[in-house]
Amino acid sequence: MALQCETRSEYAVRAMAQSRPAYQNATYTFDNLPLQRGGQLGPVTLAYETWGTLNAEGTNAILITHALTGNAHAHDIEKPDDLKVAWWNPLVGPGRTIDTARYFVICSNVLGSCYGSTGPASIDPRTGQPYAMRFPVITIHDMVRAQHELLAHLGVRQLALVVGGSIGGQQALQWSISYPELVNKVAVIAATPALTAQAIAFSEVERQAIMADPLWQSGDYYPGQGPITGLAIARMLAMITYQSEEAMEMRFARRPARNSAVPSPSNTGDLGGRFDVENYLFHQGAALAQRFDANSYLYLSRAMDLYDVSEGYPSLEVALRRLRSKALFVGIRSDFLFPAAHTRWLTDKVRSLGGDATYVELDSPHGHDAFLKEWGQMTDALSLIVNDAV
Amino acid sequence: MALQCETRSEYAVRAMAQSRPAYQNATYTFDNLPLQRGGQLGPVTLAYETWGTLNAEGTNAILITHALTGNAHAHDIEKPDDLKVAWWNPLVGPGRTIDTARYFVICSNVLGSCYGSTGPASIDPRTGQPYAMRFPVITIHDMVRAQHELLAHLGVRQLALVVGGSIGGQQALQWSISYPELVNKVAVIAATPALTAQAIAFSEVERQAIMADPLWQSGDYYPGQGPITGLAIARMLAMITYQSEEAMEMRFARRPARNSAVPSPSNTGDLGGRFDVENYLFHQGAALAQRFDANSYLYLSRAMDLYDVSEGYPSLEVALRRLRSKALFVGIRSDFLFPAAHTRWLTDKVRSLGGDATYVELDSPHGHDAFLKEWGQMTDALSLIVNDAV
Repeated sequence: MALQCETRSEYAVRAMAQSRPAYQNATYTFDNLPLQRGGQLGPVTLAYETWGTLNAEGTNAILITHALTGNAHAHDIEKPDDLKVAWWNPLVGPGRTIDTARYFVICSNVLGSCYGSTGPASIDPRTGQPYAMRFPVITIHDMVRAQHELLAHLGVRQLALVVGGSIGGQQALQWSISYPELVNKVAVIAATPALTAQAIAFSEVERQAIMADPLWQSGDYYPGQGPITGLAIARMLAMITYQSEEAMEMRFARRPARNSAVPSPSNTGDLGGRFDVENYLFHQGAALAQRFDANSYLYLSRAMDLYDVSEGYPSLEVALRRLRSKALFVGIRSDFLFPAAHTRWLTDKVRSLGGDATYVELDSPHGHDAFLKEWGQMTDALSLIVNDAV
Repeated sequence: MALQCETRSEYAVRAMAQSRPAYQNATYTFDNLPLQRGGQLGPVTLAYETWGTLNAEGTNAILITHALTGNAHAHDIEKPDDLKVAWWNPLVGPGRTIDTARYFVICSNVLGSCYGSTGPASIDPRTGQPYAMRFPVITIHDMVRAQHELLAHLGVRQLALVVGGSIGGQQALQWSISYPELVNKVAVIAATPALTAQAIAFSEVERQAIMADPLWQSGDYYPGQGPITGLAIARMLAMITYQSEEAMEMRFARRPARNSAVPSPSNTGDLGGRFDVENYLFHQGAALAQRFDANSYLYLSRAMDLYDVSEGYPSLEVALRRLRSKALFVGIRSDFLFPAAHTRWLTDKVRSLGGDATYVELDSPHGHDAFLKEWGQMTDALSLIVNDAV
């Protein structure tokens, strides 16, 4: 997605002239990030966008954390009703649940990604070459710590809310544990204390598909496109895990493809015809391979696998007892990547440790992706936690 | 697996001398098989094994149909208690549920496979070269029709039982519909009237992983090993779909691998350590890649996708009304590849059309693979249908 390049001040001027909340699309670079698993990374750049105005006390900020292949463009001020240009448009904007007229809303491209923030495709200052697989293993903790640097730079003193789904939900949870004094409220969506063995297994198949592609070249494929076949296959599998048997049955069932023009990742012919679901997956695979960096995919998916909320603390209880934010946990009935039962278990655990936690379950057939599809239920759920005084 | 090469008569003599039921391990070749989707294939060889003796009326035969990467060796007369040498040993043998002392038990390697039966690795008589991807698209109907030729050759006039799981269950079901007059009883295990969109989707990811491997060479890799990396990745994914979240959590959870010596399919290093579940999948992937033909995998998995019990009949009802066998349908509670609800639905449908159908659900966490693991429950279930007078 081509983000606009207007400067922060140009946007601010235009937004004021149009009586719209201020908007900025910028980057922030800091020197050094100590890493959870040892070593450090620097300099680190985070690309970010903000909507609205920070109050004088620095307390009306909302941080949105995005999903695996997402970016900072959670809301589009020009096309606020277009789902294709900004991934959380229905939930973010003036007068919307995450109200950019009241809050200073921030979304930053996550550490390790490829949409402007430092990641494997970035130049390693020690060598003048892209990091590629010399990029360090990063964790959810590291992502949160980098965001913390950005928020300090922006003058944020208190987060009214941290909210995100999937790997963004892992970050939201970690925010409330790493920085309990800064996080007033937290909404953890479609995330759990740690991935299941099955989820790690799917994730590893995806990575193997990428790394088995000869064009991956041990990660040193820059400035080429890299392993687009392997990445497309990985995405095909991921798309299955983001949905559900129920949703795919409703959408595709066993219908034949109406249009077989989409080449398969391996660019081979169909064996006995093509099903619509195959055509759909070929399309989704090709689309991601065109827009995303394969090495970023490896590092970010691995960070999801490695995440365990208890890591770095003596026990799970010690970790969760740190959570003092008012917390909303959102599970999705049909999510098999982050099972709702695990999110509910986490809610009960936080409560049993004295935390203020509420559990809401989206009654959706759409699987893990429901937090990017069920706008009515998402609005209702987020309203529960947002609509208190800041 | 190295099958013994003793001749049929040598075995029979030895078996009689040892008071064991007769055993044979042989092949049968016939000239021509008309194919469901057009064209024909020939000559066709089926590798098969039989245990026990056919009665004079030819009515005490049991046909066992094996799973995707299985073979004809359902029982081992030398090592009847070793699960590693014969895949259904606990259920088959003298005095066992499928009693080789009473029945003439047959298992043939399925058409399209690589364990002695005609498949993509076989020589195409028109060219003198392996068929590879010039092998025709084959269906469950074709597999059943080929088995029918074999049974006629063996003098079988009535099948006391056809029994199989997964793609073997699809064949068992099709036997009772293609040849209702020949099938006295049928046991359809972990199979449904047709695969779900999700199951087709997993299957397509597996095939893409194989065909994206440069060593696949459009299928013309013989006599080389072929796309062992791609096949290993396909197997990793398949192994996830044969199990369940619950089973993998019990077996692996998030434990680190104790032994990381197994190379990954892509032969790359671990990113932030290795989980036990990853090590297990690497091992399973490598094991299949060593023993199975990648092109066979493509054709057989595709036959599973393409199977729809109604194909070739005016309607599902017309197809199922042909089923006049006493039928046992076995679902598995935790099977997400062939959901138990679909198998139960099929049972009810057959019953509503006047069929004699019983449904049993295995209460197992082991997912699709439970029919290869839950020996107690499988014995109980099969006893229900076997223990009538022939």
